[in-house]
Amino acid sequence: MSITVVGSVAYDSIETPSGRRDRCLGGAATYFSLAASFFTDVRVIAVVGEDFGPEQEAVFGARNIDTRGVERAAGKCFCWEGSYLENLNEARTHNTELNVFAAFEPKIPVAYRDSQFLFLANIDPVLQRRVREAMPDVKLVAGDTMNYWIDGHRPALLQVLKGLDILLINDGEARMLANDKNLVRAASAVMGMGPRALVVKHGEYGATLFSGASDGAASKTFRAPAMPLEEVVDPTGAGDSFAGGFFGYLASQPQLTPEAFRRAMFYGSVMGSFAVERFGTERLQLLSRQEVDNRFNAFRELTHLD
Amino acid sequence: MSITVVGSVAYDSIETPSGRRDRCLGGAATYFSLAASFFTDVRVIAVVGEDFGPEQEAVFGARNIDTRGVERAAGKCFCWEGSYLENLNEARTHNTELNVFAAFEPKIPVAYRDSQFLFLANIDPVLQRRVREAMPDVKLVAGDTMNYWIDGHRPALLQVLKGLDILLINDGEARMLANDKNLVRAASAVMGMGPRALVVKHGEYGATLFSGASDGAASKTFRAPAMPLEEVVDPTGAGDSFAGGFFGYLASQPQLTPEAFRRAMFYGSVMGSFAVERFGTERLQLLSRQEVDNRFNAFRELTHLD
Repeated sequence: MSITVVGSVAYDSIETPSGRRDRCLGGAATYFSLAASFFTDVRVIAVVGEDFGPEQEAVFGARNIDTRGVERAAGKCFCWEGSYLENLNEARTHNTELNVFAAFEPKIPVAYRDSQFLFLANIDPVLQRRVREAMPDVKLVAGDTMNYWIDGHRPALLQVLKGLDILLINDGEARMLANDKNLVRAASAVMGMGPRALVVKHGEYGATLFSGASDGAASKTFRAPAMPLEEVVDPTGAGDSFAGGFFGYLASQPQLTPEAFRRAMFYGSVMGSFAVERFGTERLQLLSRQEVDNRFNAFRELTHLD
Repeated sequence: MSITVVGSVAYDSIETPSGRRDRCLGGAATYFSLAASFFTDVRVIAVVGEDFGPEQEAVFGARNIDTRGVERAAGKCFCWEGSYLENLNEARTHNTELNVFAAFEPKIPVAYRDSQFLFLANIDPVLQRRVREAMPDVKLVAGDTMNYWIDGHRPALLQVLKGLDILLINDGEARMLANDKNLVRAASAVMGMGPRALVVKHGEYGATLFSGASDGAASKTFRAPAMPLEEVVDPTGAGDSFAGGFFGYLASQPQLTPEAFRRAMFYGSVMGSFAVERFGTERLQLLSRQEVDNRFNAFRELTHLD
């Protein structure tokens, strides 16, 4: 079943120990939809500026991603500039230009309205909520957020959380949102805010799925490992790619069984691990489904007991 | 088969967000031998002072741990005082008194000489090497170390590494030892220093086993998860308990197959997770083998795909 995703399409300028790239195609919706497109049909809602051309459009087209909901506005694309020179696990932001995103009013094409899966990528919670309310009949809604919204836009974010089935965030964000350093207690508190399930991403250590806190943590917790990688070229988009693999796999399944969720966690980890192998979206653009499945099997083997 | 372990037996004074304990029984050899005793016979080489009495002796006796190699010396036991108030993942040391450990000369009882497994817990590498050389015929030697020795006693430590089959350290120590921030490359460099295998402990995220770097990282890497815990009362001894579970399980196996190593990683994770549930060795003292196996199954389930 198809996924509609709302989020940013952007240009990123990135510096890592492996080098530097200026103005490569990025944004949460871009990484998410590329990763999810290996599993199901994806439709994007975003806004771009006049500097978004046929070359960028072709990146989506090559993966059959529906961009009819990507609005062209006067002005420039959202821009982000950051580095990971000290620590590959945390970006240092040097500059953010909202540009066309400053006045973004998401519009949902009629052709998107039969999407059963909705992903609210990391953007202003006011926009997330608007899209959520415009698509009340979806089967499953997941979303992401970040410390900026948790810290400074909490009331709007809490409204979004009430409408989510699954929230995907990282360790620090989960602890910040719940104001509790212990991850299990934090997960329980976050699920009390609305989401039925919480995926906490641990970067190079994988991710944990928490769900149904009421009857014991052990039986309702699942941990997917990440493959230790010899070289992380660019961590940008790893979390969005995880979300795309996770949610894309779920959307491809006939039934949302606990086993489907477990496999989705592994596919999320797999897509995150590919994303970081090259700058920007380069690796996801070159990827094949066969490579995805081969790595899924390698991840399974990585932590499998007979 | 039996394990001989050399390391510290100490008194720890510990403060964590859960409270404070003064002078509880601790030390790497204590945690290691308690954890390993659930799997095999354990023999300890250490030194204690006149303040080590029948009550402490009984902790070892209750688990049938052989303490004939624990020398009684004039003076006081090794003492450590530390806290985990800011960060449960990293101890802040307030005070260390070597006391009887300052002049420790390990002596190996004749009755220990048929041990096939030797564990060199975290002590001065000069002492580790002496014990290693006094037991040249053991089947498998593993060891631990810490940043203090990596940073300030590198030549002596490098000598020890040459005589190890398996080194168990944490993330930061592996990166420091190899002077490489990337864990996969660091692991490869550390294995170049002697050990055939390296276990890197990730605290709450589990641990990774690296081995045989020559033919591809994927096929030679194994990751055991840790169970997310609702409450970590006292992290002291988690790493030593991991080592005890890991090495104890290996010593109990008829053959050291790759599958035995994988299960050993899970048992290490299990023993580490119990250790942190109460202050000091309290939880390990109360533990049953049935509880160990139940948690092993829960850990397996935590990350298992059908």
